[in-house]
Amino acid sequence: MKNIAVILSGCGVYDGTEIHEAVLTLLAIEQAGAKYRCFAPNINQHHVINHLTGEVMVEEQRNVLVESARIARGDVEDLSEFYIDEFDALIVPGGFGAAKNLSDFAINANAFKVNEQVLAICQAFAKAHKPAGYMCIAPVMIPEIYGEDAQATIGSDIGIAEALMNVGLAHRDCAVDDIVVDSSRKLVSTPAYMLATSLSEAASGINKLVAKVISMSDKSH
Amino acid sequence: MKNIAVILSGCGVYDGTEIHEAVLTLLAIEQAGAKYRCFAPNINQHHVINHLTGEVMVEEQRNVLVESARIARGDVEDLSEFYIDEFDALIVPGGFGAAKNLSDFAINANAFKVNEQVLAICQAFAKAHKPAGYMCIAPVMIPEIYGEDAQATIGSDIGIAEALMNVGLAHRDCAVDDIVVDSSRKLVSTPAYMLATSLSEAASGINKLVAKVISMSDKSH
Repeated sequence: MKNIAVILSGCGVYDGTEIHEAVLTLLAIEQAGAKYRCFAPNINQHHVINHLTGEVMVEEQRNVLVESARIARGDVEDLSEFYIDEFDALIVPGGFGAAKNLSDFAINANAFKVNEQVLAICQAFAKAHKPAGYMCIAPVMIPEIYGEDAQATIGSDIGIAEALMNVGLAHRDCAVDDIVVDSSRKLVSTPAYMLATSLSEAASGINKLVAKVISMSDKSH
Repeated sequence: MKNIAVILSGCGVYDGTEIHEAVLTLLAIEQAGAKYRCFAPNINQHHVINHLTGEVMVEEQRNVLVESARIARGDVEDLSEFYIDEFDALIVPGGFGAAKNLSDFAINANAFKVNEQVLAICQAFAKAHKPAGYMCIAPVMIPEIYGEDAQATIGSDIGIAEALMNVGLAHRDCAVDDIVVDSSRKLVSTPAYMLATSLSEAASGINKLVAKVISMSDKSH
């Protein structure tokens, strides 16, 4: 049975992992006959957003690993315990956590960096030529992970696409129900809630991404 | 298009709504061609659980409505703004939030009460003879809402079933992929994560519950 690593970044679209994307990903992995394990970095969130008002809760501080455990029903592991040999593929759902906790793209779009621990693990999949899927805003990490000319999508947001093309991404516009595949890198991306207006729309692209990532893991390196 | 009210109780299985159950419910509603609106009470959570360790975070205080907004991507409404005439049916996902925030069953199983605002709204569906679905631990609220002899399930937990039979529930054991239907009350329940060991298992019962609730809303009162 294929074993897929899923990296979470908190619990909630505005300061962590987008919950629908994460749940749809885990469901699609199961329904493809594969299994998953969830991981998150043991670091503080960049901040906490009141998801009802959109405002920063300045008094609050939450931990990415602890909050990610909500999505995983407790079953989440510290990224420091990650061993790539145990996994066939990687998937990173979106949500602002990917751009605030796993990287700082949302804070510093002109000179952003991926968290060092996250970067090392994502690069390990690239170097091992194991497939990986990034959805929603998570593809902002791809240029630093894969270097110049990797092909990926964040949907059709011109501003974000330009910021990423400036650091070497070969950005491809993509519909919500579709995926962009960089075959030579075994790299898959889909817009998910960068474009989706409903769970069903998000699911249409996510299901394709999960199926493609798993099918690519069948091929010899 | 049928309009389904969904009552949330926070965000996370141990102190709020079970996230997978909520997302699977919303997806099933969409895929049945209906729409939904999410509601939650504007009250403090009973407590906050660290979902990684299972321990109470004694310094933390979180609001049920604010945390529920994480599941609903911000689109959740205060239960005080609820008008039953706008809805065809009600669904309440599970998670300990149903037994800690919507009621106090988890704290006081021998003399528990449903939150007054929640009770009024749930009873309004019963009185209007509009269908309702309760999943996982949420059926603990059914005896107070529907009175004696209502049929429902919390799966097969003998202790919880006995506590509910003591207050008049006609409890029925039920498999994870099945539902219990009290036709005369248009009341549906399913065990979900009271028994499920995977998202797919939870989905099997939840999809049946959602389909049954929506189909019952087609019939004249």
